[in-house]
Amino acid sequence: MLRIAEIFGPTIQGEGAVIGQPTVFVRAGGCDYRCSWCDSLHAVDSEYRHTWAKMSAADVMTEVERLSGGIPLTVSLSGGNPAIQDFAELIALGRAKGYEFACETQGSVARSWFADLAPLILSPKPPSSGETVDWDAFDACIQASGQADVVMKIVVFDDTDYVWAKDVAARFPDLPLYLQPGNHTPPPPDAEDAQIDMDGIMRRYEWLIDKTLADQWYTVKILPQLHVLVWGNKRGV
Amino acid sequence: MLRIAEIFGPTIQGEGAVIGQPTVFVRAGGCDYRCSWCDSLHAVDSEYRHTWAKMSAADVMTEVERLSGGIPLTVSLSGGNPAIQDFAELIALGRAKGYEFACETQGSVARSWFADLAPLILSPKPPSSGETVDWDAFDACIQASGQADVVMKIVVFDDTDYVWAKDVAARFPDLPLYLQPGNHTPPPPDAEDAQIDMDGIMRRYEWLIDKTLADQWYTVKILPQLHVLVWGNKRGV
Repeated sequence: MLRIAEIFGPTIQGEGAVIGQPTVFVRAGGCDYRCSWCDSLHAVDSEYRHTWAKMSAADVMTEVERLSGGIPLTVSLSGGNPAIQDFAELIALGRAKGYEFACETQGSVARSWFADLAPLILSPKPPSSGETVDWDAFDACIQASGQADVVMKIVVFDDTDYVWAKDVAARFPDLPLYLQPGNHTPPPPDAEDAQIDMDGIMRRYEWLIDKTLADQWYTVKILPQLHVLVWGNKRGV
Repeated sequence: MLRIAEIFGPTIQGEGAVIGQPTVFVRAGGCDYRCSWCDSLHAVDSEYRHTWAKMSAADVMTEVERLSGGIPLTVSLSGGNPAIQDFAELIALGRAKGYEFACETQGSVARSWFADLAPLILSPKPPSSGETVDWDAFDACIQASGQADVVMKIVVFDDTDYVWAKDVAARFPDLPLYLQPGNHTPPPPDAEDAQIDMDGIMRRYEWLIDKTLADQWYTVKILPQLHVLVWGNKRGV
């Protein structure tokens, strides 16, 4: 059985390589990380475990089909860290019906089903998260992806994160990289629509654009979280 | 000689297929259209022709290299309609130095150099523009692009535009399509940083997302103009 914090959509993908794409999100419950600025604590903190549904892959797919009206689209596996659970069966069920699956994970656990994703989004966590990347595990994730598209996304809060992102980019020159400004006012896990510092978020985005371009780092894309700009910290959109 | 309204950057591409990508913009002066809601009238209205520089392709490339510090990036040919001029020499000069060229045009004039673009962005203008698309010319643009990537972007202001966009999508099912909410408060041509109705623009974006998803139209991407969200109507960013 899968532990599912929420299934919602269709909405647009707000971040990264497939930004703007109609998507149903399957948010897995549980995470091996605890990032200081996590914006999805309700799907991470085991204190909220009682709110996660135990669902079979078939149950999840039924809900995805209900939400999408049975018309195939992209399903994004998010979390928490979806890679600590086995989504192989869900992906097989969905792909047989024409659905595509994207997955975002920090790259701490490799799964054979990464090879069936379009795309696999690896989001190694920068120093401001308080977590430390296990690069052997990260390399294993890339290996597991086989011929699937793999992209990286790095959240940047400050200068230290930025320098770290440049080092990571140098380490993986073949992976497309998306830089994303962090939300320093993430919602608490028990709030459905928490206050947010939109001006500060926009200022950080502009700072990140200016810094990257002044640095003549032209091989990245710099994107905000569109869902935050449109809906703030509201959940389920 | 080329008629150039402005060359600026590096900044990020704010729209469409390569959103977020570091870019230097070469804005061509002159246009065969006069869209009712044009946001670049200073590069369209011949009243502003005296502000357009006459530059050789080599002059333009020198300025692009100065702005980018000689480090290759993507150059976006915009306008006005860049396709009413011949950018073949600029593209050849730039590509020889590792620069890539994107071009956005309404698809009214086909050029052989479309085949050298990455990507060609065809932006057929919807009914609210007051213009009428010549589909034979549009087809010729696709033909001219050869093996180059071609994408479509359609600005949507209202229900009529939306229905029209769906018809266009059905006509060109193989072209990736980006829907973009319009800015109903475009800058006048003589203003560097004009007032803008940001709330209204965000509401139109949300309306377009809601409408497209409720319609179960999942094969498009729905993206705002990021530069507008960050910088409003400010010119040169």
